[in-house]
Amino acid sequence: MKQKKIISCIVLVHCFFLSFSSNGYDLWLKYSKIENEKLRNEYKAAVASIYFENGSETLDAAKKELIKGLESMLGISTSFGELARTSNSLIIGKQEALGIDIATLLRNEYASLNKDGYIIKSITLNKTQHTVITATNDLGILYGVFNYLRLMQTNSSLKHLNKVDAPKLDVRILNHWDNMDRTVERGFAGFSLWNWHTLPHYIDPRYEDYARANASIGINGTVVTNVNANALVLTPHYLEKVKALADVFRPYGLKIYLTARFSAPIEIGGLKTADPLDPKVMKWWKDKTDDIYELIPNFGGFLVKANSEGQPGPQNYGRSHLEGANMLADALAPHNGIVMWRAFVYSEHNADDRAKQAYTEFVPYDGKFRDNVLVQVKNGAIDFQPREPFHPMFGAMPNTPIMMEFQITKEYLGFATHLAFLPKLYEEVLQADTYRKGKGSTVAKVLDGSLSPKKITGMAGVANIGNDMNWTGHPFGQADWYGFGRLAWNPHLSAETIAEEWIRSTFANDENFITPIKKMMLASREMVVNYMNPLGLHHIFDTGHHYGPGPWVGNLSRPEWNPVYYHKADENGIGFDRTETGSNALAQYAPEVAEIYGNLETCPETDLLWFHHLPWDYKLKNGNTLWDGMGIKYQKGVDDVEGMISLWETMKPYVDTTQHQHVAMLLNIQLNEAKWWKNACMLYFQTFSKMDFPEEMEKPDKTLAYYQSLKFPYAPGIRPRW
Amino acid sequence: MKQKKIISCIVLVHCFFLSFSSNGYDLWLKYSKIENEKLRNEYKAAVASIYFENGSETLDAAKKELIKGLESMLGISTSFGELARTSNSLIIGKQEALGIDIATLLRNEYASLNKDGYIIKSITLNKTQHTVITATNDLGILYGVFNYLRLMQTNSSLKHLNKVDAPKLDVRILNHWDNMDRTVERGFAGFSLWNWHTLPHYIDPRYEDYARANASIGINGTVVTNVNANALVLTPHYLEKVKALADVFRPYGLKIYLTARFSAPIEIGGLKTADPLDPKVMKWWKDKTDDIYELIPNFGGFLVKANSEGQPGPQNYGRSHLEGANMLADALAPHNGIVMWRAFVYSEHNADDRAKQAYTEFVPYDGKFRDNVLVQVKNGAIDFQPREPFHPMFGAMPNTPIMMEFQITKEYLGFATHLAFLPKLYEEVLQADTYRKGKGSTVAKVLDGSLSPKKITGMAGVANIGNDMNWTGHPFGQADWYGFGRLAWNPHLSAETIAEEWIRSTFANDENFITPIKKMMLASREMVVNYMNPLGLHHIFDTGHHYGPGPWVGNLSRPEWNPVYYHKADENGIGFDRTETGSNALAQYAPEVAEIYGNLETCPETDLLWFHHLPWDYKLKNGNTLWDGMGIKYQKGVDDVEGMISLWETMKPYVDTTQHQHVAMLLNIQLNEAKWWKNACMLYFQTFSKMDFPEEMEKPDKTLAYYQSLKFPYAPGIRPRW
Repeated sequence: MKQKKIISCIVLVHCFFLSFSSNGYDLWLKYSKIENEKLRNEYKAAVASIYFENGSETLDAAKKELIKGLESMLGISTSFGELARTSNSLIIGKQEALGIDIATLLRNEYASLNKDGYIIKSITLNKTQHTVITATNDLGILYGVFNYLRLMQTNSSLKHLNKVDAPKLDVRILNHWDNMDRTVERGFAGFSLWNWHTLPHYIDPRYEDYARANASIGINGTVVTNVNANALVLTPHYLEKVKALADVFRPYGLKIYLTARFSAPIEIGGLKTADPLDPKVMKWWKDKTDDIYELIPNFGGFLVKANSEGQPGPQNYGRSHLEGANMLADALAPHNGIVMWRAFVYSEHNADDRAKQAYTEFVPYDGKFRDNVLVQVKNGAIDFQPREPFHPMFGAMPNTPIMMEFQITKEYLGFATHLAFLPKLYEEVLQADTYRKGKGSTVAKVLDGSLSPKKITGMAGVANIGNDMNWTGHPFGQADWYGFGRLAWNPHLSAETIAEEWIRSTFANDENFITPIKKMMLASREMVVNYMNPLGLHHIFDTGHHYGPGPWVGNLSRPEWNPVYYHKADENGIGFDRTETGSNALAQYAPEVAEIYGNLETCPETDLLWFHHLPWDYKLKNGNTLWDGMGIKYQKGVDDVEGMISLWETMKPYVDTTQHQHVAMLLNIQLNEAKWWKNACMLYFQTFSKMDFPEEMEKPDKTLAYYQSLKFPYAPGIRPRW
Repeated sequence: MKQKKIISCIVLVHCFFLSFSSNGYDLWLKYSKIENEKLRNEYKAAVASIYFENGSETLDAAKKELIKGLESMLGISTSFGELARTSNSLIIGKQEALGIDIATLLRNEYASLNKDGYIIKSITLNKTQHTVITATNDLGILYGVFNYLRLMQTNSSLKHLNKVDAPKLDVRILNHWDNMDRTVERGFAGFSLWNWHTLPHYIDPRYEDYARANASIGINGTVVTNVNANALVLTPHYLEKVKALADVFRPYGLKIYLTARFSAPIEIGGLKTADPLDPKVMKWWKDKTDDIYELIPNFGGFLVKANSEGQPGPQNYGRSHLEGANMLADALAPHNGIVMWRAFVYSEHNADDRAKQAYTEFVPYDGKFRDNVLVQVKNGAIDFQPREPFHPMFGAMPNTPIMMEFQITKEYLGFATHLAFLPKLYEEVLQADTYRKGKGSTVAKVLDGSLSPKKITGMAGVANIGNDMNWTGHPFGQADWYGFGRLAWNPHLSAETIAEEWIRSTFANDENFITPIKKMMLASREMVVNYMNPLGLHHIFDTGHHYGPGPWVGNLSRPEWNPVYYHKADENGIGFDRTETGSNALAQYAPEVAEIYGNLETCPETDLLWFHHLPWDYKLKNGNTLWDGMGIKYQKGVDDVEGMISLWETMKPYVDTTQHQHVAMLLNIQLNEAKWWKNACMLYFQTFSKMDFPEEMEKPDKTLAYYQSLKFPYAPGIRPRW
C-alpha cells in the first residue's frame, strides 16, 4: 500500500477544559478546599486534637457535619480523643460534659445564653490554648459546629474567638405550599421534595440534606403542606409518611408541622360540622392531635389559613378566628404544640380597602388568644409585593404573639428566573419603625418581644425550595433561603452581612468577586421594584399565575382581585388614595407613621402611589413629572439588569462554568422580562396619561395589544386544582 | 484551677467512611476508573496517539465524549494529532477522511455497512498496528465512539477488533407522555425533564446529558409530548421552545417529534372542523408543518393517538384512520417527515373483545398507507400487562410498516419502586413466532423487514424518565431505558447480553457481582408476573392510577375498563375465553399460533387464563388444581422478592453505599406490595372458588374488605386533568 504523502506528526493538543461542574446541590455547605495555605495550616492546627461529646442523635449529626466539613475544606481525616486539657485542642460538648474548670471559666457566657444558643470561645487551660464549642443543649452544639465551620468557610481567623450567639426568635420556620400531588403553589424550582407516594419506605437522602441545610442557618421548624390545605395528610396512611420525615429531621432540631384544614372533621372525620364550639369537633381535634403526638412526639403544631380565599374556617359556623384558633390551641397545649393562625384574610362581603381588613378583624382580639397561638402576619397588608409598607398589625397587638410571614419564593419578584436578593426586602421591613413605643420601635423589636414581652416569638418564610437539582431554581435563590434563616435567627442582622457570608460559603472568598457581587445583590431588589412596580405601584401582575404584567386586568369577579383596583389609573392620575380623603388605611398606623406617609412632603417616593392618587403631571422631588418619573424608573430597572449582565460576564474566573452559564442565561431572561414590564405597563398607562414617553425611556417595540394578548396557561406554581 | 482526675489521652479514632455517594445521575456513562492495572495500561497504550476527524457538531460531540471517557476511565488528558500511519494509533473518521489505503483495506466492511453503522477494526498499516473507528456518516462515528468506550467500560480487550455494527431499525424512538404542566402520565420518576416555562432561554445541561445517554445506545428520536396531546405545543410560542431542545439534541443524532392533536386546526387554527378531507384542514396542517420545518429543519414528524380513549380523530368526521394518517403524511412528505399512527384503539360502540379491535380496524388498510406512515402497535393487544401474548397485528400487515410500542415506564409492573428487568419482556415478545411465513417468523423479523420488506422500520418506547436525580426513580430502571435502546438498535439481541453490558457499565466489572445480579435481573420480570398476574391473568389493576390490585373493580362506565371484564371469575372458574367458544380472538393469529394457544395441551400455562376460562379445579401440568396453582404462583412471586433482598444484602461490597441503600429500601417496598397483591387477589378470587388456600401459600393477615378500602387519590402518573 502506498502513501501519497507523508503526513507530519505535529501533535495538536486540544484543550477541552472539563471542569467539575457543580450543579448547586451542595448549597452553602459545599465546604470548598481552603485555598490559602497559611490559613489552611492554621485551621489544621486548630483541629489536630478534638474532643467531641457523645450521646445523642443530634450530637452524632453535629459530629458527622464536622467531619464532612473538615475533610472537605482541609483534606484531613478527622479523629476524636478524650477531653485533653494539656495540649491544644478543640473541645466540643455541653456544659456538664466539660468539667467544672471550663464551666467556671465560661460562667458569664453560660449565664447569658438563651435556649439553643452556643458559645465558641478561645480559652487557656493549664497554659495551653483551646477552643471550646459549648451550649446548654444538644441543638446548641449542632448550631455551634455549623457556625465554627462557617468561620472556616468565610476564611475567618480562629484566634481569640469569643462568640456567644443565640436565636432571638423561638419559631424559625419554613412554610411549604406543597400539595399532595407534588405540585407546589407558587413553586418555581420544580416540584415538591416530598415524595408522598414512596414515603415512608423510601427515604430520599435529600430529606436529610434538607434538614442539614436548615439547621446550618438555625431554622428549627417546617410546615410540609400547603396552607390551601388537604385534610388527607391527617389520615393515618399519610401520618405514617409524615412521621418518616419527622424522624429524618429530628436529629437536626427541625420540627415538623402540618396545615390543618378546618373542615377536616367533616372530610375525614365523618362529622356533620366543623363548628369549633361543637363538642364533637373539639373532641375530634383533640383525638387527632393525640394520635399525631403518639406517632411523632416532637410534632410542632398546626398552621391554619381559615376563611381566606375560599378556605373553610370558623366563620362558616358563625364563630370567630379567635374561637377557631383557641379550639385548636387547646388540643395542642397538652403536648406543647402551637397554632400559627394566619391573618391573611379579606372578606368577600366587605367592600373596604383590602389593605385594612386583617387589622380590622384581628386587632380587637389582642390579648385574647391562648398562650400557644401565634398570629402569622404577612410583611405587608396586601400580598408579598416587590415593595410594601410594613403591615399595620406590627406593633398594634402588644399582647399577642405576632409572627412574621415573609415569602422566600418569588411569586411577585420574577419567579425563579430573576435575581433579586430578598434579605434586602426583609431588612427594610424589619427595620421599619412602627413608632408604637416611640421612635426606634422597629418591626424587628415587635417580633423579638423587646418592645412588648411575648410568650412566644417567630418568623415564617414561604419556601422557594423544589426538586430542582439546585433546590431553588436560580442559583442566587439559595441566598434568599439562607438569608431568611439568618434573619429568623437574628432579625437585626444586616442584609450586607448575610450577602457576604453567603457569597463566601457558596462561591468564592476572593475580594475581587465578593465586593462587586455583594453590591450587585444588595441593589438587585430595588431593580426589580423599578422595572415592575416603581413609586409605590402594586399588584399589577397578570392574573392567576402572576407571571408578568397585567395592569389592564379588570374582569375578575371580586374587585380586589383586579390590578385596576390597585393602581386606579384614570385620566386624572394614578395611585391608591389611602389618606383621609381615601380609604384612610393610614389611620391603622401609629400617628407618626400616618403623618410621614400621609404628607406628600415626607412620604418616601418609593411608596408614593401606595398611599396617594396623584395627577400625571405631579412634580417629583427631582422636578420630573410623575409620568416621566415612572418611565425613567422603569428604564432604570432595565438598565440595571444590563449592568448585572456586564458585571457577571467579568466574573467567569471565579465561578464554575456550569453555574456561570446558568446565571448568565437567567440574567438574559430577566432582561427580556424587565423590558416586557416596562413596555407593557408604560403603554397601558399611556392610554390614561396621554403623554409622550420621556426621552430617557427606550420606546416599546411592540403594541399594547400584543402584550395584552400574551397568555400563559402553564406558567408554574398555580394553585391546586381540586 | 484544679482538675479532679487526669484524663488519659488515648485517641479514639472514629471511622466515619464518607464515600463519594453516587446519585445515579451519570447512568451507564459513569466511566469509572479502570481498576485492573494491566488493562488500564493496555487501554492507555491504545489511545496514546489519536487522530480524530473534525468538521461537524456531531464529530465535536463524539470527540468531547471520547475525552470525557478516557479522562475518567484512564486518568489521562487526551490529545489529538494528524493522521499518522507510521506509529500505533487510534484513527477516527469517516471513510473519505482516512485516505485510500484504509478505505481499500476496509472495502468489504464499508460495503456491508448500513446507514448510521460503524466499523471498529484493528488494522496493520506500514507494519504498525492501528485501531480504526469509521463510518459513512458523522452519526456512525458518534455511535462508534460510544461503542469503543463501552469496550473499555466492560473491560473488553482492544486487540484484534473486528466489529461492524449498524442499526437494524430506522426509527429508534422514545415516547414521552409528558404534559405541558410537567406532570407525566404514567411517569413515576418525578416530573417532566422539559421545563417549558424557562425554555427556550434557559438550557438545562440535563438536556444535553439526555441526548448523550440516548445516543450512547443508538436512540435517534424522541417525542417530547404526550399522546394524549395538547395543541398548544404547535403554537409559535411553544415551537420556539421545541426548537431550543431540537438544537441541543441535533449533534447527538436525536431528532425531535411532536404529538399532533387531531383537533388542533380548530383549537389553535380557528377552523370550524378538523375533517382530514377538508381542504382548509389539509392546508392548515401543511402550513403548520412547513412552519415547523422552517424553524427545525431536522424535525422528525408526528405521533398521533386518534379516536382512542376520548382523543379526537378522523372518525369524528366520518373518516377513517387511513384518511387521517395519510393527510398528515402528505403534509410531512416534502420534508421527509413521518407519521407514527397508533393502533391502540377500541371503540366505545363496539362490544367485541377489546383485544380484537385494533386488528379488526387496521388490517383491512394493509398496503394503503402512504410511504411515510408507520403504524405503531403495542406489544400486546390489551395494554402493557406484565405478560401478554404478542399482538396479532404483527405479521398480519405484510405491506405496512409496523413499528413496535413497548412501555419502558412500569405502569403495570410496579411503578418505579419494583425491580423488573423489562428487556426480558421485550425479548419474549420479539422472539415470539408469528408463523406468518412459516416457523421462525419472529416479531423481530416482522419489525426489521426481513420477513416482508418494509420502506421504513422502527421501535418506540414509552419513556420511564423524569426529573428525579437518577432519571428513572429506581436505579435498576435505568437498565430498562438502556435495554430498550439496545433492542431498538438490534431486536435480536439477548436480554442476557444487555444485562451484562449494563451491569458492567453502571455498577462493577467484578464477576462476583455480575453473575448473581444478572441472574436476579433476568428472573425479576417473571417474579412480577407471578405476584401480580400469574397464569395469564391480566388487567386486574386498581382503576385509574393502576397502583396495586383491584380485581374487584366492576363499576366503571365501559365494560372493558373493568378488571372483572378481564378475569371473568365466577363460581365455575376464571379466565377469558378467546377460543372459538368465546371471543375467538385466536382467529386473528396464524393458524399454527391459534392451534398452540387454543389447545389446552399446548397452550403455555403462562398464558392459560388469557385464552381460556377454566374451572377452579382444572388440573395443571404439575397436578395441582388451578386454584392451588394460582396461590403457589403468587407465593413464589413473594418468595422470589425475599430472595432478591437476601442477595442484595450480600452485594454491599460492590456498590456505592447510597445506591445500595436506595435499592434495598425499594426492595422492601416491592416485598410489601407483592404480599399485598397475593393477599388481595387470592382473598377476592376465593369469594368465587370457595376453596381453601393452598398449604404452600402464606395466609393473608388482613381482610378483603381492608384491601378493597385502600384508596390512592395522589398515586403518581395519573392522566392530565384539563
